[in-house]
Amino acid sequence: MLTTTTTLLDFLLETRTHTETLCKPLEIEDYVVQPIVDVSPPKWHLGHTTWFFEDFILKKFKTDYKEFDPNFSFVFNSYYESMGARVVRTDRGNLSRPTVREVYDYRAYVTNQLQELLEQNTASDELQSLVEIGIHHEKQHQELLLTDIKYILGNNPLQPIYSESFSENPASNQSTTWIEIPEGIYEIGHNGEGFCYDNELGKHKVFLNDFKISNQLVSNKDYLEFIEDGGYDQVLLWHSEGWDWVKSLHTKAPQYWQQQDNLWFYYGLDGVQPLNLEAPATHISYYEAFAFAQWKTCRLPTEFEWEVAHQTLNWGARWEWTESAYLPYPNYQKAPGALGEYNGKFMVSQKVLRGGSIATSNKHTRPTYRNFFHPQLRWQFTGIRLAQ
Amino acid sequence: MLTTTTTLLDFLLETRTHTETLCKPLEIEDYVVQPIVDVSPPKWHLGHTTWFFEDFILKKFKTDYKEFDPNFSFVFNSYYESMGARVVRTDRGNLSRPTVREVYDYRAYVTNQLQELLEQNTASDELQSLVEIGIHHEKQHQELLLTDIKYILGNNPLQPIYSESFSENPASNQSTTWIEIPEGIYEIGHNGEGFCYDNELGKHKVFLNDFKISNQLVSNKDYLEFIEDGGYDQVLLWHSEGWDWVKSLHTKAPQYWQQQDNLWFYYGLDGVQPLNLEAPATHISYYEAFAFAQWKTCRLPTEFEWEVAHQTLNWGARWEWTESAYLPYPNYQKAPGALGEYNGKFMVSQKVLRGGSIATSNKHTRPTYRNFFHPQLRWQFTGIRLAQ
Amino acid sequence: MLTTTTTLLDFLLETRTHTETLCKPLEIEDYVVQPIVDVSPPKWHLGHTTWFFEDFILKKFKTDYKEFDPNFSFVFNSYYESMGARVVRTDRGNLSRPTVREVYDYRAYVTNQLQELLEQNTASDELQSLVEIGIHHEKQHQELLLTDIKYILGNNPLQPIYSESFSENPASNQSTTWIEIPEGIYEIGHNGEGFCYDNELGKHKVFLNDFKISNQLVSNKDYLEFIEDGGYDQVLLWHSEGWDWVKSLHTKAPQYWQQQDNLWFYYGLDGVQPLNLEAPATHISYYEAFAFAQWKTCRLPTEFEWEVAHQTLNWGARWEWTESAYLPYPNYQKAPGALGEYNGKFMVSQKVLRGGSIATSNKHTRPTYRNFFHPQLRWQFTGIRLAQ
Amino acid sequence: MLTTTTTLLDFLLETRTHTETLCKPLEIEDYVVQPIVDVSPPKWHLGHTTWFFEDFILKKFKTDYKEFDPNFSFVFNSYYESMGARVVRTDRGNLSRPTVREVYDYRAYVTNQLQELLEQNTASDELQSLVEIGIHHEKQHQELLLTDIKYILGNNPLQPIYSESFSENPASNQSTTWIEIPEGIYEIGHNGEGFCYDNELGKHKVFLNDFKISNQLVSNKDYLEFIEDGGYDQVLLWHSEGWDWVKSLHTKAPQYWQQQDNLWFYYGLDGVQPLNLEAPATHISYYEAFAFAQWKTCRLPTEFEWEVAHQTLNWGARWEWTESAYLPYPNYQKAPGALGEYNGKFMVSQKVLRGGSIATSNKHTRPTYRNFFHPQLRWQFTGIRLAQ
Repeated sequence: MLTTTTTLLDFLLETRTHTETLCKPLEIEDYVVQPIVDVSPPKWHLGHTTWFFEDFILKKFKTDYKEFDPNFSFVFNSYYESMGARVVRTDRGNLSRPTVREVYDYRAYVTNQLQELLEQNTASDELQSLVEIGIHHEKQHQELLLTDIKYILGNNPLQPIYSESFSENPASNQSTTWIEIPEGIYEIGHNGEGFCYDNELGKHKVFLNDFKISNQLVSNKDYLEFIEDGGYDQVLLWHSEGWDWVKSLHTKAPQYWQQQDNLWFYYGLDGVQPLNLEAPATHISYYEAFAFAQWKTCRLPTEFEWEVAHQTLNWGARWEWTESAYLPYPNYQKAPGALGEYNGKFMVSQKVLRGGSIATSNKHTRPTYRNFFHPQLRWQFTGIRLAQ
Repeated sequence: MLTTTTTLLDFLLETRTHTETLCKPLEIEDYVVQPIVDVSPPKWHLGHTTWFFEDFILKKFKTDYKEFDPNFSFVFNSYYESMGARVVRTDRGNLSRPTVREVYDYRAYVTNQLQELLEQNTASDELQSLVEIGIHHEKQHQELLLTDIKYILGNNPLQPIYSESFSENPASNQSTTWIEIPEGIYEIGHNGEGFCYDNELGKHKVFLNDFKISNQLVSNKDYLEFIEDGGYDQVLLWHSEGWDWVKSLHTKAPQYWQQQDNLWFYYGLDGVQPLNLEAPATHISYYEAFAFAQWKTCRLPTEFEWEVAHQTLNWGARWEWTESAYLPYPNYQKAPGALGEYNGKFMVSQKVLRGGSIATSNKHTRPTYRNFFHPQLRWQFTGIRLAQ
Repeated sequence: MLTTTTTLLDFLLETRTHTETLCKPLEIEDYVVQPIVDVSPPKWHLGHTTWFFEDFILKKFKTDYKEFDPNFSFVFNSYYESMGARVVRTDRGNLSRPTVREVYDYRAYVTNQLQELLEQNTASDELQSLVEIGIHHEKQHQELLLTDIKYILGNNPLQPIYSESFSENPASNQSTTWIEIPEGIYEIGHNGEGFCYDNELGKHKVFLNDFKISNQLVSNKDYLEFIEDGGYDQVLLWHSEGWDWVKSLHTKAPQYWQQQDNLWFYYGLDGVQPLNLEAPATHISYYEAFAFAQWKTCRLPTEFEWEVAHQTLNWGARWEWTESAYLPYPNYQKAPGALGEYNGKFMVSQKVLRGGSIATSNKHTRPTYRNFFHPQLRWQFTGIRLAQ
Repeated sequence: MLTTTTTLLDFLLETRTHTETLCKPLEIEDYVVQPIVDVSPPKWHLGHTTWFFEDFILKKFKTDYKEFDPNFSFVFNSYYESMGARVVRTDRGNLSRPTVREVYDYRAYVTNQLQELLEQNTASDELQSLVEIGIHHEKQHQELLLTDIKYILGNNPLQPIYSESFSENPASNQSTTWIEIPEGIYEIGHNGEGFCYDNELGKHKVFLNDFKISNQLVSNKDYLEFIEDGGYDQVLLWHSEGWDWVKSLHTKAPQYWQQQDNLWFYYGLDGVQPLNLEAPATHISYYEAFAFAQWKTCRLPTEFEWEVAHQTLNWGARWEWTESAYLPYPNYQKAPGALGEYNGKFMVSQKVLRGGSIATSNKHTRPTYRNFFHPQLRWQFTGIRLAQ
């Protein structure tokens, strides 16, 4: 936990501001639409992160707190079933009201109220802890905000640019090598110092066989070879449900890849560009990551192997699919009440991703962070690292 | 056809302006969303009616016409399959770009170009005829614009008001009576003077048995009796597919009716109000209209009965479901080329509605006008008139 | 109505026997499956036609009638919502029990009970009328039985033969000509002598323009020309929903047409044979019939035109799609109670077919008979006749 | 591997015979239907297990082998994508042909050919190994055959009995107790002696925290308490997707539980009986197993805990859901070619079950056996064991 309320307040204000900074390049219209169920309208992210503070903190800790608008609780609740009725996820893009202006007003109101609350300088440990969760919750949504914006703009026939200066591809001058890790018992999980989510807790031992892991992510060049070798047509490389996914969607390349006259282009937040062969491949589903690894006669690392090896890896540009399913650690304890819905209820049918991405907010990832998605999703900056 | 180009230009400009006037109460966000497939975003209506003029007229008749933006043809084509690729209908609400600002610029540009073209004062008959179709096309979209706006606002949890002065319920002081029409041969269809659509042409004779038709529309009071008598639970009143519709959607009342504490309210363009019992019932599907008539041991009129009797009827507030299927008149001729897609290709599986509604633009209905919708739809201002 | 009970009994027994004769070529397994929702398992037809007699007649008229098995009412009710719970249509093919043996026992039991009842020789008019309806109901199912069997066998990868001697293609040595009918008032509908369904009643006048109608059905040769001219790729020939149907199902030919090495074959009840070019085209949807007529710059006749012209037509091999929607005649009266569900509740979203087919049972069609199906269906022996 | 060919042949013949014995109580109609996609028609199991021997063994090892019928390969291939075209899974219940008689002939023919092949007494190791896989493949299908038959009969409105002497509920006189296992490194996986599947191989070490595991399965009595305490209405007990499953299907009890007049009944292979409170609960999805464990403030064991503790457990009556996802063991090697499709391609989105059930064939389970199903499935004899 952070040591002083002042620092916490700064951290809060900086986070609140950063969310709005991310939206600066948007037109009002961009805030509203929801082209697929996994993407939320930017307006919704702005409201939902605010609702979280209002519902979990202000209503509970602020004396005589006056709710901004009672309808907003219904509109901006995401999935906390135990917190009452809510707009179903698929309907978020049907809502033209509240307007973007009203949502910004809502944000300002709640931020001010939080500031007042924290400046009273008597913040209990519980309050500080909740504020901290709220901040990290908002940071998590900052990444979704950016990837959802990319989806909204990148799937528009006009393919508008988000920001010409946004670079998706960090330079790397390391050469590729296999890191070897000996068999043994290793400790996994967060040690509890500094913030982490409940799903990282329960530091515990695992036994690992010796293994090798690549220090680098798979590049677009590598992935293009897979495509050109007919990887999407070789059934034996794929999981059964992965193969169904390829066939039913006619998948032939990662998301945002576009072929014109036999040349490959890529839509990035800086617009459509020729495919950068040196950049780490991204917007790849778990099914594709697995099939690629099979084709290389390699495999994906487990989340434990990744965590053990992380210090030797070049990571942070792409969320990396692991072979591990998203499961509770031994002695996992769900938070009581509604906050218990944060992580635990998703621990089935999803895969763990490790690392972080160029869209991840600062201070929002760490070596023990466990991200998780369903295996077919690829609108995040997902990538591939090989193991043996 | 209108006699002078000046009049035509005035008519055009007045129509173009009126479309924009209808949008005055909207927030930018309201222009963008598409909550169900039948509703189009207001922005799309603004663009599509403009594209119609650009694609069918300016590109053909204006020398050296410079297209506003080549992408717009793809975005704003509605269903003219023969005119090239287009955004599929279900995706219209996913498009944040072009922005509302850009669409208004597109409108101004095209209107100016049309004005230039018509002021050259050498408008051929063909050109005049196409402009006239474009005007009526836009008027048709004005009604959809209003009902789509109603759907967007009325299904928003905040239920915002469109305009406090918009009255959906015209006063009527006529008492209800049955008009009797004797058996005989009657002429049906448009005589070709003044504008009409191709589906009204082919004036022809029909033989009608003697029949009675109500001079008034069914009121909310009448319809409420049907509900309170358990009309939605009596299977024998319904068509087989109507019954499936009732059961699968749990339909219990017309659209926009809301029950709170045993009182009925209604969302109108002027906001939520107690149900006005004297007003003509509206937002009713054909299935409901039919079941209501069965319950009354009456029936719906055919479109021919309606047309023959129209002079004795109080009409114009609601589009009225008829028992007639939407079929071509004898000797129906589809227009050649893409304009032939306007009406003919919808002549299956739809019902004819006659009359007009409080949302119909001026000069946009007439006694021979044939509106048509699938039987389950009810977001238009549809109503019921009984016959025997 | 038939004049004597003896004749009625003979008619009944002959009909009951014929149903079972139609099933003679079947293996037990063939009785059970339901490959699409429109097709019912033959076992179900056998049971349902029997249930109709049991539920509407024996339970009401036979003193101390002992129901064969109370569960059968649930299993074999088709759609009479007012007669209680029933197996939903899509589940019919999931039922292995009752067995075929038990269904035949059920048939024998009910037939015997009906025989006893009718031999008491005091059959009231009401009873005679209901028996007659039951007979015609069963005859109607005989045709469905045959076309459902064709679907079951013809869509099996082994394509087994139903009967080597079954000929789908009656010889015709008439040449094709246009019959001309003058404009005028004509009488339409059944005169009430002999059996007919309620939907044929209400003899009434219609006014018809002069028209021409072909004395012959469209042949496979004609239809093949349409295919070879790219008829399935010309959007302007199709209704909007017809075009969607073609595109989503990748339709390229009528049902049961198979192309191998550029030769066309056809699966008939006598097995797979080279396409007979002289035979009348069949297994065609309304959408295809309409598009074909458009391509020929002709149209389909209305059901009224067909009825007026029928004496001059070569008909009876194919059910013929008309342009008419299935609607009630003026003064149509639904039978009271459950029998009222027989026809009236289907009078929306369907097209009328006139004629009859090589699968129609004897005495089961007549010039006023109105068959009806949804426009996309083509597992019946449907065909095309042109008009102008 | 078995030591002599004679023994292998005996094992084969005994297995082939047992499959047919399981079908003795069936009517021909029962062999044909497929009420849900997860259930296959018994006829299909009979054919598919035979096709496996024909395609993987006879065609390869038997000189001049004459295929029984070339169409059968298409009909009875299950999912071996690399082995050519096949009937899609959802269509299996649409096939009335080949008949049951023909499938039995096919079985006899293939069994005889296998017998000839093995009696030549020169069976290579590869051949013996493939025959052994074929035998175990057929044993695996024997269990599915029984549970599919249960589904077919138990979901028929007549609820016929499979066998009055089939007991689903083995007696147990052990009392319930918690087994305690200390923390440490344990070995997991098959040692390679005797038959096992590829997914059990790769014996490897895991580190386990100390844990407690119940020696007994959860009983119907326990589960009924969960129901009566409102377990199906408490959102916080459920995974997010489990809750959606409960709500969309209106789940209120395990499959085959039926409530009549406040009494609970259960459909077993011996017919409908009052719910046996002492019997181990079964036909439970993973979602329900998890929610039940949450309600008990316990958890499900991992597959590793189960394997380590198995000697102290009373097991074998129900397949037991574990918390483990179905993933490859370290160093997992897929078999080359089509047999590699056996297990590996399902290693995503499924949960591991351990144990075996009263439907499992003899010699077909063992402590290292890894069964797997999607979390919503419950037509198998699945059950619950608690851990802490």
